[in-house]
Amino acid sequence: MPMQINDARMMMSAVPSGVAPDEWNALAIRFGEVHTAVEADRKNGRYGFTELDAQAAEFKRVADFAKGAVGQFYDVVVLGIGGSSLGAIALRSALGAVEGAPRLHVVDNIDPATFAALLARVSLDRTLWCVVSKSGGTVETLAQYAIVRDRLAFAGLAPSKHLAIVTDPTSGPLRAIAVRDSIPAFAVPANVGGRFSVLTPVGTLPAALAGHDVAALLAGAKTMLAQCATPSLSDNPAGQFATLLWRAHQRAGQGTHVFMPYSDALRDIAPWFVQLWAESLGKVDADGLPQGPTPLAARGATDQHSLLQLLMEGPADKVVAFVRVAARDIDLTVPATGDMPEAAAFMRGRTLGELIDAEATATASALGRAGRPSLTITLERADAHNAGELLMMLMLATVYAGALYRVNPLDQPGVQLGKKLAKEALTSRTP
Amino acid sequence: MPMQINDARMMMSAVPSGVAPDEWNALAIRFGEVHTAVEADRKNGRYGFTELDAQAAEFKRVADFAKGAVGQFYDVVVLGIGGSSLGAIALRSALGAVEGAPRLHVVDNIDPATFAALLARVSLDRTLWCVVSKSGGTVETLAQYAIVRDRLAFAGLAPSKHLAIVTDPTSGPLRAIAVRDSIPAFAVPANVGGRFSVLTPVGTLPAALAGHDVAALLAGAKTMLAQCATPSLSDNPAGQFATLLWRAHQRAGQGTHVFMPYSDALRDIAPWFVQLWAESLGKVDADGLPQGPTPLAARGATDQHSLLQLLMEGPADKVVAFVRVAARDIDLTVPATGDMPEAAAFMRGRTLGELIDAEATATASALGRAGRPSLTITLERADAHNAGELLMMLMLATVYAGALYRVNPLDQPGVQLGKKLAKEALTSRTP
Repeated sequence: MPMQINDARMMMSAVPSGVAPDEWNALAIRFGEVHTAVEADRKNGRYGFTELDAQAAEFKRVADFAKGAVGQFYDVVVLGIGGSSLGAIALRSALGAVEGAPRLHVVDNIDPATFAALLARVSLDRTLWCVVSKSGGTVETLAQYAIVRDRLAFAGLAPSKHLAIVTDPTSGPLRAIAVRDSIPAFAVPANVGGRFSVLTPVGTLPAALAGHDVAALLAGAKTMLAQCATPSLSDNPAGQFATLLWRAHQRAGQGTHVFMPYSDALRDIAPWFVQLWAESLGKVDADGLPQGPTPLAARGATDQHSLLQLLMEGPADKVVAFVRVAARDIDLTVPATGDMPEAAAFMRGRTLGELIDAEATATASALGRAGRPSLTITLERADAHNAGELLMMLMLATVYAGALYRVNPLDQPGVQLGKKLAKEALTSRTP
Repeated sequence: MPMQINDARMMMSAVPSGVAPDEWNALAIRFGEVHTAVEADRKNGRYGFTELDAQAAEFKRVADFAKGAVGQFYDVVVLGIGGSSLGAIALRSALGAVEGAPRLHVVDNIDPATFAALLARVSLDRTLWCVVSKSGGTVETLAQYAIVRDRLAFAGLAPSKHLAIVTDPTSGPLRAIAVRDSIPAFAVPANVGGRFSVLTPVGTLPAALAGHDVAALLAGAKTMLAQCATPSLSDNPAGQFATLLWRAHQRAGQGTHVFMPYSDALRDIAPWFVQLWAESLGKVDADGLPQGPTPLAARGATDQHSLLQLLMEGPADKVVAFVRVAARDIDLTVPATGDMPEAAAFMRGRTLGELIDAEATATASALGRAGRPSLTITLERADAHNAGELLMMLMLATVYAGALYRVNPLDQPGVQLGKKLAKEALTSRTP
């Protein structure tokens, strides 16, 4: 079953702020134009994340390296931040732990207590450190690299055996180090930025080392690419997602976009999506006006006990994107007999999977009755193939949304000043 | 050092949308009225979370129970959702793992894959299950309780030795079960709702079982209560926090409130705050209008690589509340010599603590230069006492904000319909 997006509750027939039938036709025309423009740019190499076949040789190198690492390491640690860590974390949760594979840690912050605890816990001679930075110049990651490198030297361990680098194919400080010291290095294609890099070695190297089915992940992504080859709004899931959320923002003031998977496996796709949507779209448009929706990560059913009150009765400025899975490989049944208070007696003989699914449906329905829009993405199951479909759908949707919001989805000019000020503060002080 | 809130970047002298000097005087008068009203309600028992001394006997029971459990259990599992889990998770992160204490797990969702994996991992005869629900009727938690209870029966283990219950002192299905089966039970005071319950056995029982310093936590909370006894806006941290965020929303359209600790230990206070702020304030006001800010959980420095672009250049509808720690017990120094590319050479001889702190300061400064407001909460360090201060400050702020938004911060009428629909869906289907 391919991914499906149910958008009935984005329509005026369901919620007052929804799309009227003739407005849909106008949106379909607009999306058709966007699709044409994006496809043209894509053919010119602007969207490297869609060029999966061009990476075939590098994927083979990743797979061979992971095969060679089997049995050598107890722990694999990713040193990376933002686009260099969120994809690895999302895949780790989505694909689960593999029996016998090394533990996968992702150090995505520079909090010294966290990093010191990890350094104390792992056995240095049985640990592989993956240093991940597209530019090769991320100061947080380089600071951690320098600390690890020093420890390796002190322990007399060869950097080329305990480090792997993921960075630009040719340029940047990390690439230079890899070449100088013969450290295994894997390429993020030059035309793929950090937040679009989950399907490059940024995501696939950690996943392969953790024993995951990277081939299925990439196959899922290709399925979605094929599905989105059409300029027809009704048939292009990424187009549907982007166009309806953009339209809700522009026409109905619904600029807070809640991404809410009803699956623990898919939970870390939410913060990955938050970075993608926020950093790609939150910027000044062609007319000099600040643009950008505010993405909000949530998780069902848990956050019904946190955010739902606000979604139901707070300001009507939000859209919820539910993510459901149609089939679960593992389920648990509430005993048909045994102790169960009256308040939950209807759960006797039911499964937790039935409950969480019923809650997803009921919550969308309750929001609809309150006049609040939502859409529901349904995946066949939470596995590598479906994760690939979902990730690619969201990346394509981000590029379409960039065109709709009239911003460049690939840059991030607003983060430079903070970096500059932090560097100045540290440089001016005497150590 | 008591907690400090720096609000300079909420003022017009720093950002165009900020508070003008004479407006500050009006806000101070308004807060004085709010403080008087809240104090009156408090004396009438409306805000049970502030009545820490009334819980003294129950805290002693919790401490004794935790002492008696030492060495008996490898794993302690909290079964709870929303207000019954977020506090335990926040404290677990804030207070850290204690050598030799049992592992603390919190099952805060009903995803069957997660729960099945946990059931497969723990040793049933060495596990304590804490079933937490104020009402005692939370269906997700009761379903999980029924599954655990069944497993205990199958293994011939006594429920009274492997279960602990945290619920209302006298009423509800869980209290009835505790009485019937002599299961150790701890009381959430009747006048404390789920999202205000972190400083009741909902939070303190898991913390005590994990070996944490609950006394210091409560002492910190009491320090904050004393600090907030004043109706003076300049001297009441909770008043400052609530009034400035409310004012930013009402007068400047800044209704997205980003809570961003620069400390991994404090990271899970952010989702706890999200529930508190969203569920307490997101509702219909006295005039029938939907109200409520949208809280957003973030973490520094990590989310500078995710949200900062949107915060700097997106719509000017947000305020960032930074949380910093003044002192760190653990730090790591970047080697003064050794391998360090030019891009990060300024980090030689610096610590990661210096870097993360410089990033917090620089980010606030960069936002200010872009005209975006923020405030900075500084804690002396990330420990039990300071966590107690911060949690109590935020709960008091929520009650003040309820008065300012003119909503009842203690109810959550909007979540009932979804529950009803989910139950109907499961009841109507044949199993």
